[in-house]
Amino acid sequence: MATKTEDYLGIESYNVVGTRPIRHDGTDKVTGRAKYGADTHTSGVLIGKTLRSPHAHARILSVDTSAAEALPGVKAVMTGADLAQHYEDKVAAIGEESVNLPDLIKNVLASDKVLYEGHAVAAVAATTSHIAEEALELIRVEYDVLEPVLDVRPAMEDGAPILHENLRMKSLGQTTDKPGNVASHFQHSLGDIERGFAEADVVVEREFSTQTVHQGYIEPHNATAYWNLDDQITIWTSTQGPFEVRDQVAVVLGVPASRVRVVPAEIGGGFGGKFRVYEEPTAAVMSRMTGKPVKMVMSRTEVLKATGPTPGSYMKVKMGATNDGSLVAAQAYLAYEAGAYPGSPVGAGAGCIFSPYDIPNVVIDGYDVVVNKPQTSAYRAPGATNGAFAAETVIDEICEILDADPLEFRLNNSAREGSRRADGPVFPRIGHDECVKAAMESDHYRSGLDGPNRGRGVASGFWFNGGGTSTVVVSVNADGTVSLVEGSPDIGGTRTSIAMQVAEVLGIPAAQVKPMVVDTDAIGQTDGTGGSRVTFATGWAGYEAAVDAKRQMEARAAKLWEISEDDVVFDGGVFRSRSAPEKSITFTELAGKLGATGGPVVGRAAVAGKAAGPAYAVMVVDVEVDPDTGKVDILRVTIVQDAGKAIHPSYVEGQMQGGVAQGIGWALNEEYFYNEEGDLVNASLLDYRMPTCLDLPMIETIIVEVPNPGHPYGVRGVGEVPIVPPPAAVANAIYDAVGVRLRDLPMSPGRVLKTLIEKNGGGNGRG
Amino acid sequence: MATKTEDYLGIESYNVVGTRPIRHDGTDKVTGRAKYGADTHTSGVLIGKTLRSPHAHARILSVDTSAAEALPGVKAVMTGADLAQHYEDKVAAIGEESVNLPDLIKNVLASDKVLYEGHAVAAVAATTSHIAEEALELIRVEYDVLEPVLDVRPAMEDGAPILHENLRMKSLGQTTDKPGNVASHFQHSLGDIERGFAEADVVVEREFSTQTVHQGYIEPHNATAYWNLDDQITIWTSTQGPFEVRDQVAVVLGVPASRVRVVPAEIGGGFGGKFRVYEEPTAAVMSRMTGKPVKMVMSRTEVLKATGPTPGSYMKVKMGATNDGSLVAAQAYLAYEAGAYPGSPVGAGAGCIFSPYDIPNVVIDGYDVVVNKPQTSAYRAPGATNGAFAAETVIDEICEILDADPLEFRLNNSAREGSRRADGPVFPRIGHDECVKAAMESDHYRSGLDGPNRGRGVASGFWFNGGGTSTVVVSVNADGTVSLVEGSPDIGGTRTSIAMQVAEVLGIPAAQVKPMVVDTDAIGQTDGTGGSRVTFATGWAGYEAAVDAKRQMEARAAKLWEISEDDVVFDGGVFRSRSAPEKSITFTELAGKLGATGGPVVGRAAVAGKAAGPAYAVMVVDVEVDPDTGKVDILRVTIVQDAGKAIHPSYVEGQMQGGVAQGIGWALNEEYFYNEEGDLVNASLLDYRMPTCLDLPMIETIIVEVPNPGHPYGVRGVGEVPIVPPPAAVANAIYDAVGVRLRDLPMSPGRVLKTLIEKNGGGNGRG
Repeated sequence: MATKTEDYLGIESYNVVGTRPIRHDGTDKVTGRAKYGADTHTSGVLIGKTLRSPHAHARILSVDTSAAEALPGVKAVMTGADLAQHYEDKVAAIGEESVNLPDLIKNVLASDKVLYEGHAVAAVAATTSHIAEEALELIRVEYDVLEPVLDVRPAMEDGAPILHENLRMKSLGQTTDKPGNVASHFQHSLGDIERGFAEADVVVEREFSTQTVHQGYIEPHNATAYWNLDDQITIWTSTQGPFEVRDQVAVVLGVPASRVRVVPAEIGGGFGGKFRVYEEPTAAVMSRMTGKPVKMVMSRTEVLKATGPTPGSYMKVKMGATNDGSLVAAQAYLAYEAGAYPGSPVGAGAGCIFSPYDIPNVVIDGYDVVVNKPQTSAYRAPGATNGAFAAETVIDEICEILDADPLEFRLNNSAREGSRRADGPVFPRIGHDECVKAAMESDHYRSGLDGPNRGRGVASGFWFNGGGTSTVVVSVNADGTVSLVEGSPDIGGTRTSIAMQVAEVLGIPAAQVKPMVVDTDAIGQTDGTGGSRVTFATGWAGYEAAVDAKRQMEARAAKLWEISEDDVVFDGGVFRSRSAPEKSITFTELAGKLGATGGPVVGRAAVAGKAAGPAYAVMVVDVEVDPDTGKVDILRVTIVQDAGKAIHPSYVEGQMQGGVAQGIGWALNEEYFYNEEGDLVNASLLDYRMPTCLDLPMIETIIVEVPNPGHPYGVRGVGEVPIVPPPAAVANAIYDAVGVRLRDLPMSPGRVLKTLIEKNGGGNGRG
Repeated sequence: MATKTEDYLGIESYNVVGTRPIRHDGTDKVTGRAKYGADTHTSGVLIGKTLRSPHAHARILSVDTSAAEALPGVKAVMTGADLAQHYEDKVAAIGEESVNLPDLIKNVLASDKVLYEGHAVAAVAATTSHIAEEALELIRVEYDVLEPVLDVRPAMEDGAPILHENLRMKSLGQTTDKPGNVASHFQHSLGDIERGFAEADVVVEREFSTQTVHQGYIEPHNATAYWNLDDQITIWTSTQGPFEVRDQVAVVLGVPASRVRVVPAEIGGGFGGKFRVYEEPTAAVMSRMTGKPVKMVMSRTEVLKATGPTPGSYMKVKMGATNDGSLVAAQAYLAYEAGAYPGSPVGAGAGCIFSPYDIPNVVIDGYDVVVNKPQTSAYRAPGATNGAFAAETVIDEICEILDADPLEFRLNNSAREGSRRADGPVFPRIGHDECVKAAMESDHYRSGLDGPNRGRGVASGFWFNGGGTSTVVVSVNADGTVSLVEGSPDIGGTRTSIAMQVAEVLGIPAAQVKPMVVDTDAIGQTDGTGGSRVTFATGWAGYEAAVDAKRQMEARAAKLWEISEDDVVFDGGVFRSRSAPEKSITFTELAGKLGATGGPVVGRAAVAGKAAGPAYAVMVVDVEVDPDTGKVDILRVTIVQDAGKAIHPSYVEGQMQGGVAQGIGWALNEEYFYNEEGDLVNASLLDYRMPTCLDLPMIETIIVEVPNPGHPYGVRGVGEVPIVPPPAAVANAIYDAVGVRLRDLPMSPGRVLKTLIEKNGGGNGRG
């Protein structure tokens, strides 16, 4: 691929790639015509509602649904037993690969134990939502309430309440004997960590914590299901991964995946949180019970209490540098909360934490720990933001000790092509250097910052980016437009970014390509919209499908002119004869002649297993801290990011700004607040405080383009890495402003004020 | 292609083709879940209704919509002027090809004249259907009522009322000077007609007439349109031709075709009548006027009064044979009603009328004549049934004179490979011989027929069949199922007949293929479901797409086994290594390994311009005539038809039975009944009498398979030809029963009784 793609890396020569056309779905979204999941309407639909546990940790002794069933208008009532009764058989039938099947099923509807407040216990389908809600109140569940454990460190202690009696820690190839809450422990190492710290002149070791944070997508989870009499199941839902939903529904219900068709609606945000199924299997089972479609839409409270946030974590990071400013050793202890079932992103956190740097001696220990909170899901660069908060603030301390410019220090220690990550891989061509340099040269970093209680911080961030599988089909229409059929739900403008890659190949404007996201029966396997993979992999499939169409068009031109196919050349949207240059025809003109030369042209391609190009971001932030309240105002932000190649720069900038906005929310305000019983007490967007536009300045963006040699246009993927630097950068800025180091997120007014008071021996420094 | 396809003509070796699997869409259709056009629901929809002319022929002097516009709830009112004002510009812009554009527009909404009772004049969109209907009554139209002309012969006379002042007859390369109702006249000739009749020992010349007949589909026309603010127009409708609707809507509205997306619903019958647009452009314009989706569904009366039936006709046929039973000359004068605008199927009628036979000397004159009835549309073998009624009854008279068995006579004169049609083409391999022989050998024809007033008749029929353009995409899923995406609305079970051709190539059961009919943006150009073309052409595209997928799968097997692609052979659903026979893997197993060998496999193909295989049918029918009432009972019917290859024999039989049922309705009962003012007085299914199952015996079917050498599986197309023989066969049977020859359709009780009375000199023969 390298040779081929290098031909396309003449970045200045593109006609479409790198421009900013209007998005194809813009009008629908602006006018409200775009159909989201809750806009699914089918005749005879029943409304489903879920009964959820009021306890964070309890054994279910009995569930009595008889009164609910007797309520007029109630058509189906189901409990976890309806799903769970066969799962041992299913595991046996499906084998080792589905080791998480019981967890998946039990998270959909609990059968033996509830493991977090809001855990689904039973569901009803009724003719109206009011009847369904009334029916929920008639279900009697008898619980044996147990003590919950809500934080990662207490959960790891001996004597902690045990969530799963059968959970044994897998650690470095061994499995422990007794049950605990640590599901797994792994270790990455590179070089000789002891020697590394011995060589260091400066060593800083600190502890950090972060809280559970939700993605905060505006659209709640939703699912409408119809289980047909021929056992074909259709699921209409807003999801990042229609194929992932298809496969999960199939495995939970014990039917072949081809029996399930998932029709993806528009999606009002996902950020990683809309891959796992929640009410989809429930709706499907109740549809089978009733013969009717069943629609379920979560409330905001349900979303916050019962869907997957990103984990709280405890981290200890130790880093060492020589006096000449070289990082020589780094060690991390990462314990991430998985929520109720194993599967935190601690692995990804470990892969990212030190990856902006080339450090010869590294040890990273990771722990995946269950606690009585909802099962965590992916959230934008999952696990990386936690780690960066720790590592990038330790580096700030080292820079302070060495009196080094924090960007110069990062540049001196930057990972480059050939550097090895602690978790194994050697880097291909990457762009951290270029991002740091761009930040150093930015107007922001060169500008002064005056005034009391103001400070500036910087931080770097890393994310792997994803490859995966994508399928694209393009059809050339007689009027020269090209229909583009894809399976990637469009969250960030990817209809357009894929259409642009098709248009570039075919020498036509992006508006001449008509992208359409279709259901799982209408396109080949396409992995979900996540991992910053769509513009990279679905775009690549679009590129290859367009090349397939272009080759066929060349053959048509040859047929038209009665010359050899080898004699046809295509450039800039025009087919020409090499040997007879007077023969030429545009793509659009030739499209009108396909009927007469053999029929329509369809291009198709699938890509799989392509290694994505890693991404870096560097953030510069100025803050002002109010010493009376501890409130932190963001004065100015610049985010620098290596896009590889920005197909549509506006959408890249949008991702950068969105990621920073979320990262600042995480830094300053957002946290799940549980009481001692394990009840989430801020389960609304009024109390769960995400930043609004009033909280943020315009976020300045600098796109760096270090083309990914592993993609035809050099695309890396842009969606995730901008969320990684903000908490660390803000913490470093707060220190610069008021001289206190915050090591626990969020850096909310109360926590900042408390730290200021502690620093000043009981006052805030003002008297 | 010949060599390639011959490889596949080993008819006995198929595993899927020729079997009778359950149809993929069966459950949806049986349970009522299938979505038809009127099931389209969108939020904020307005209901559109059309005001129709009460006069068959009138000039529109003025239209006053002010009172309708003032009615609360009315959101839009439009008239023909809203469409017509720009059509001269459109014609100028689009050029000669769109010569029918004014007709198309004026048929959607009349602007200067109304040309038939029920002609659309204005339309309203309102919040409810009741308000819309009330608004129609408030529209004041001032007409100058003109004398209508309702039959083809009076319409051709000098002095007849003129429908179009600018219509000039095109005849044999000339254009007449003065206006008339004959739009065109053409002539086909072969040999020397004078010498032919001179050689004949027997010459019979007769006149015939047929009446206007509707296709009688159960589902009325419907259209829901949304004109988005970005000028993208979406049309949801039941149609045989989504791409044809797209193109017509585009041309009427003066927008590029790519601005229009047509989403085809399930379709409750079409038979040729659901290609032309009626309310689609109206709904679109009113959507633009209101910013809302507009839904329009016709009533049954509107369907009968204002959509396209098949034409009434006047025919004169003269045929000559020698005493040894050879047809030596045939002449036909065919005058077909076009309805209000030119375009009757007289050309097809002329191409079919003598095509079962090899006749050396032929002349056929055809006339396309406008009358004050709705514009005709295609109806199952359009034009052929009229012609066959004439020719096949004349042949019956000749056989009677020559004392020849009517099937033996047909066999002796049968067209064969190499025979030339009067309209030019030379036949490829065809199956008329085989059909006649099968009829002769049938249990029915060998059985006696006793009893008074009973008789038997036979007739042959011919239809060209269609080729056209189709696109298919198939995706191989990990569980071995194959998603099949096509653009052909499924009227007669073609989801399955195409899936079977895909399955045959891939060595899997038909149920393992999942067919899906998608909209015009989601698949390449696919001509409409008509001309008996879908199983032929879309099936062929499916075959080629499957071959494309199979080749890629062979490459994957080679990759898996690290052998050359040439070393992989695929047979019976199993890939094997030629050189190492122990290496083998089934299609389904290999499908599960695609992710690891390069990603999903997508096959794609488009076919265009393939010559279809002509089709023949021969019918044997027994009738009993009630001499007191003239009522004809059908006692027994056998229909024999050359399918080429019956992909799914049940669906072929269904087409044969359905065609015969419609042909019998046309023979015995169906007709548009107009009063002198030109009002259709039987515009309901109570008064427009189609046969029900109580009127018909079980129709026996004999499928003949003379493979079409121009198709991979030998498919010809089966939908149309079975309607061709019935009227002639029934007429011949009535003669055999009671000795009277009926030459005017329908042969209703009144007409049969009248003919019996005339024969018997004023009585019915019973006294």
